[in-house]
Amino acid sequence: MALSALSACIMDDNLSGLRSSGSSFSKYYGGHYETCSPSSIKCKHLSSVGPLRTFHSTNSIYRSGIKCHSVTEKRFPYSAGKKFGLDNVIEAQQFDRDILNEIFKVACEMESIEKNSSGSKMLRGFLMATLFYEPSTRTRLSFESAMKRLGGEVLTTENAREFSSAAKGETLEDTIRTVEGYSDIIVMRHFESGAARRAASTATIPVINAGDGPGQHPTQALLDVYTIEREIGRLDGIRLGLVGDLANGRTVRSLAYLIAKYQDIKIYFVSPDVVKMKDDIKVYLTSQGVEWEESTDLLQVASKCDVIYQTRIQRERFGERIDLYEAARGKYIVDQRVLSVMPKHAVVMHPLPRLDEITVEVDADPRAAYFRQVKNGLYIRMAILKLLLLGW
Amino acid sequence: MALSALSACIMDDNLSGLRSSGSSFSKYYGGHYETCSPSSIKCKHLSSVGPLRTFHSTNSIYRSGIKCHSVTEKRFPYSAGKKFGLDNVIEAQQFDRDILNEIFKVACEMESIEKNSSGSKMLRGFLMATLFYEPSTRTRLSFESAMKRLGGEVLTTENAREFSSAAKGETLEDTIRTVEGYSDIIVMRHFESGAARRAASTATIPVINAGDGPGQHPTQALLDVYTIEREIGRLDGIRLGLVGDLANGRTVRSLAYLIAKYQDIKIYFVSPDVVKMKDDIKVYLTSQGVEWEESTDLLQVASKCDVIYQTRIQRERFGERIDLYEAARGKYIVDQRVLSVMPKHAVVMHPLPRLDEITVEVDADPRAAYFRQVKNGLYIRMAILKLLLLGW
Amino acid sequence: MALSALSACIMDDNLSGLRSSGSSFSKYYGGHYETCSPSSIKCKHLSSVGPLRTFHSTNSIYRSGIKCHSVTEKRFPYSAGKKFGLDNVIEAQQFDRDILNEIFKVACEMESIEKNSSGSKMLRGFLMATLFYEPSTRTRLSFESAMKRLGGEVLTTENAREFSSAAKGETLEDTIRTVEGYSDIIVMRHFESGAARRAASTATIPVINAGDGPGQHPTQALLDVYTIEREIGRLDGIRLGLVGDLANGRTVRSLAYLIAKYQDIKIYFVSPDVVKMKDDIKVYLTSQGVEWEESTDLLQVASKCDVIYQTRIQRERFGERIDLYEAARGKYIVDQRVLSVMPKHAVVMHPLPRLDEITVEVDADPRAAYFRQVKNGLYIRMAILKLLLLGW
Repeated sequence: MALSALSACIMDDNLSGLRSSGSSFSKYYGGHYETCSPSSIKCKHLSSVGPLRTFHSTNSIYRSGIKCHSVTEKRFPYSAGKKFGLDNVIEAQQFDRDILNEIFKVACEMESIEKNSSGSKMLRGFLMATLFYEPSTRTRLSFESAMKRLGGEVLTTENAREFSSAAKGETLEDTIRTVEGYSDIIVMRHFESGAARRAASTATIPVINAGDGPGQHPTQALLDVYTIEREIGRLDGIRLGLVGDLANGRTVRSLAYLIAKYQDIKIYFVSPDVVKMKDDIKVYLTSQGVEWEESTDLLQVASKCDVIYQTRIQRERFGERIDLYEAARGKYIVDQRVLSVMPKHAVVMHPLPRLDEITVEVDADPRAAYFRQVKNGLYIRMAILKLLLLGW
Repeated sequence: MALSALSACIMDDNLSGLRSSGSSFSKYYGGHYETCSPSSIKCKHLSSVGPLRTFHSTNSIYRSGIKCHSVTEKRFPYSAGKKFGLDNVIEAQQFDRDILNEIFKVACEMESIEKNSSGSKMLRGFLMATLFYEPSTRTRLSFESAMKRLGGEVLTTENAREFSSAAKGETLEDTIRTVEGYSDIIVMRHFESGAARRAASTATIPVINAGDGPGQHPTQALLDVYTIEREIGRLDGIRLGLVGDLANGRTVRSLAYLIAKYQDIKIYFVSPDVVKMKDDIKVYLTSQGVEWEESTDLLQVASKCDVIYQTRIQRERFGERIDLYEAARGKYIVDQRVLSVMPKHAVVMHPLPRLDEITVEVDADPRAAYFRQVKNGLYIRMAILKLLLLGW
Repeated sequence: MALSALSACIMDDNLSGLRSSGSSFSKYYGGHYETCSPSSIKCKHLSSVGPLRTFHSTNSIYRSGIKCHSVTEKRFPYSAGKKFGLDNVIEAQQFDRDILNEIFKVACEMESIEKNSSGSKMLRGFLMATLFYEPSTRTRLSFESAMKRLGGEVLTTENAREFSSAAKGETLEDTIRTVEGYSDIIVMRHFESGAARRAASTATIPVINAGDGPGQHPTQALLDVYTIEREIGRLDGIRLGLVGDLANGRTVRSLAYLIAKYQDIKIYFVSPDVVKMKDDIKVYLTSQGVEWEESTDLLQVASKCDVIYQTRIQRERFGERIDLYEAARGKYIVDQRVLSVMPKHAVVMHPLPRLDEITVEVDADPRAAYFRQVKNGLYIRMAILKLLLLGW
C-alpha cells in the first residue's frame, strides 16, 4: 500500500510537481484510519516508509521522538520531513524559543511562497475542517485563506453547536471522531476553555485551537511575536508597551507570556485602573527575570518603547456600568501626539478590530503596523498548517 | 462541439490524467442547458459521442435504456461509462439487490481511492450544490468531503429557505431551475416529505435526497447496509436487532426495508412500548418472507444477533411528557453487560449522534462499529456522486 | 522578484497550461501588498514587466491609461492582457456603450468556456472573498459558481456584520483592509447605499458591488441588457415593456438607465398607480432622447414590445396596507393571454424570484427567457471576474 501510494506520487511528480504528493500523502494518511490505532497515526510519516509502530496514546501534545523523514525529504524542497515538535497547536505554553524561531523561519518562507506559484500546491489533497462553535469570521477567513493559498481544501461550519445541541447532546469527543473521518486537520473555535485540549486528546489528526473561550488563542500570540520580529528586526532587548484592557485582553496576556522567553525585555503596562494587568502575569514575568512597570503616562512610555501594543476596551465586560466603560475607553488613545514622541523605528500594533483607541490619522504613518500584523497572521497560519501536515 | 470538447480532454490527459476529462465532461454537460430539452440531458454520455436524441421527460427516476459508454470507458480506468441505473437518489425503494451490490463495489473502490492520489481528480471540474432548507452539519460535511476527496468543487447554502422565504414565496421548482444553472449535481435537505422527488422531476441534473423531513434519507440507509456487509462479511442470513425508538426512527425503518431484499433475514425489535415499530413495516417484512419478533430482553437478543443497531430516543417526540421520555430512554442501554453476551463477530451500530444509549466504555471494544459506520457514509457518498456524474 | 515569478509560471506552462500562470499571477499580485502603495497595485500587469510606477490614489473608479499587456498576452489565448477600463464594478453609471459591448463579447466567450475544459483553469490561484453583510443566497451562489467555473477559489461569509457588529463597531474601511490581505478580489453585498464605493476607494484589490441597499446592483443590470441582446439579437431599436413595481424595483431602474445608451429605444411603463416609475428616470430618459409612455393596457403593450420585463410587487413595501398590496399584485399578470398577443420573436424576462405575476403555464413557452436570464448572470459574472483579475 505504502509503496503503491508512493510510486503513484512519484509518477505524478513528473507531471505536475508536488500536487499529488500532497494528495497521496493525505490519502495514505487517511488510509490509516481503519488499520491502526489513533496513537499510531501520530507517526504517519514513519509508517509511510517502514512497518507500522503503535505506542500508547496520551494526552500529551508532544510527539514521540521517532524520526519521520526519508520519503518526504525527497518530495519537499523546503526542509520538509524532519519531525515537527508538535502534533497540535493548543496553547502558547507549547512553544519554546527554538520552536518559535523555527516556526517564524517557515512563516517567512510563506511570504515568498505567496508571491510565486510553486507553493500553492503544497497542501493539495489535504482537507481542513473549520469547526466553529461560535462564529469568528475574521479568524476563520484567515485560516481558510492560509489553507487555500497552499492548495488545500476546506470544509466549513460556523454552527458547530448543532453537532452538540442541547436537544441532541452529543459530546465534543463524538463530534471530533466524526469530523476526523471527513478531514485531515481540524481548526476549532469553542466557547469553553480547555475544549481544544480535549479535542486534541481524542483526535487522530492534528487540531489547531482557534480560540477557546477565555482560554487560549495561540496563533494570535504567534503572529504578534512574529510581527515584532519582522518590524523591529529582533526579539531580544525589546521595550514593549501594553496599552488598554490588560485585565480581559487574551492577546496581551499571551504576548506577555511569549515575549518573556527572550532576553532583556522591558514591559510597560498602561491601562485604566478598572482593567489593570492581573497579578498572575506580573508574578510570572518577575520569575522569568522580565522587568515591568505600570505607568499612567502613555506619552512617556511611547517615547521609550519599540512597540506600542494597543487594545480595545471591551464594553461587554462592563455590564451596566457604561459610565466606567466610557471613562476607561477615552483614557489612552494612540493619536498624532503619541506618534510625535515615538522613535522612528518603533511601531504601533493592535489585534483588531479597533474603535477609536487608535485614531484614523495614524493609519497613514509607516509605523502603523496593525494591517501588516493581519497579513502576518496569514503567514503564521500557512506555516502552522504546513508544519502539522507535512513536518519541517 | 462534442469532438472539440473530447479532443481538448484527450490532449489534456497527456498532461495531467483525468483532471480535465472530468472538467470537459462537466462543461459539455453544462453546454446542454440551452441546446436541448431537460430530458435529453439524462443521456449526456450518449449525446457526447453521437447526435443529440431527446425523449419525453417524465417524473420517473429511472433512466431510459440507452447505453452511454463509448467515450467514457476510454477515460476512466474504474469501470466508468457503463450506464448507472439511476438518474437521482431519492428513496430506498429505488434500489434492488443488484444495484445495491454494484454501489457497494464502487464504495469499496472508494476506500482505496481515498488511500492513494489517483482518485482525487475523478470529479475535477464538477460542481455540487448543497441546498439545505434545514441545517444538518453532519450530513452536509459528509457529502462535501466526499465531493472534495474526488476533486470536485462545492457551492454551499445552509439557509436555502431564503430562496423560498414566506416573504418572497418562490416555489421549489423555480429554485431548482436557478441552482441547476450554477452546478452539476444538487444535494438537497428539505423539511417536507416528497420535496426531493419534486426537485428531481424538475431538475435537468442529478438530485440526491439528503433527507426530506419525516420522509427518506436514502444514503443513510445505504451506508447502514454497506456497513453490515463490511463488518459481517455478508448480507444473507443476518440476525439483526433494532433497538430504541423504532416508531420515529427514519433510519431503522429504511434499514428494515432494505435488508428485507436479502435471504434468510431475522429481525428482533427491542423498544419501549411508546415507540414500538409500526405495523406497515411489520406487514411489509412478513410479505417479503422476513422473520421478525418483538422482544423486551435486550441481553437475550444481543446473544443471538450479528448486528445490534441502537438508536436515540428522540426527546422532541414526547412534547410535555418528559416522564415518558425519561422512562423510555433509560430502558435499553448498550453497555459492558450487553457486550459480554454478544458473539465475537457481532457489531454494535448507531446512526449518531448518541447520548447515553451506548455507554462510552463500549467505544474501546473492536465490536463498536459506529465510527467506522460514519466513515462508510463517506465512501457511499463518494460512490453515489461518482455514479451519478460519470456512470459506472 | 517579478522575473522569478514569471519564469516560474512559464516553466509551469509547459506542464499544465494556464493553471499556474493564474496562480503565479495571483501570488505576484499578492506580493505587492507590502512592497508598493495601494494605487500602484492598480497597475499590477505593468509592474510585472517593468519597474514599479506608483501614482496618486483617488476615489475615481477609472484606471490610469497605462498599458498593461506584454506578459499576459503570451499567457492567455482569449485576448487577455489589454487593459480593462475599470478597476471595480460599483454602479451602472460606469459603463458606456463600448465597455458594455466588450463585456458582452467576453461573456459570450464564457458560454463556450463553460462548455469545454480549457477555461476552467483561467483563474486558478485567485481567491475571491464574498463579503455579504446581508444574506442573498441567489446572488452569492451565482458569483461563487462563476469563480469556481474559472478555476478560482472562494472565501465565503454571509454574516459579515460580525466584522462590524455594533458591539465591536469596526469601520467598513478596516474590514476591507483585513479581507484584502486574505484574497485577490472582493464581492460585497451591503445594506447601505454607497458602501460599495467606500469599499472600493479603500481596497487595493478589485471590488464588485453585489447590491448595496436601495442603491445599485450593477451585475444584475448587465445581465438584463446582455439577455436582451442574446434573445433579440440587437440592442438598438428595442421596444421594452417594464411591468410591475417600477417605483421600488432596483432592477427596472438600472435597466432603463442602461438601455438608454442605445439608439431608437421605446419604453412602456405598466404599473399599478401606487408603484409608478419615478420622475428622475423619466426626466433622464427624455434627456437622452428615449421615447417613453405610461400605459394601463398590458395586452396592447405586449403586442408591440420585443421584451416584456415583469417584476414582483414587493409586499414589504406596503407595510400595513395589505389591501393596497393585494390590489397591486393582481393587476398585471403575464399569462397565456399575454403570450397570445406577443410577437413570435419577443421574450418575457423577470429578475426572479417570481410569485404569480408570471403564471407557471408560461414557463413552457420558448419565449419565457427568465431562466436563460439566470444563466446569463453566470456568464456576465464570469466575464467581470476575468476582466478585473486578468484584463481583456
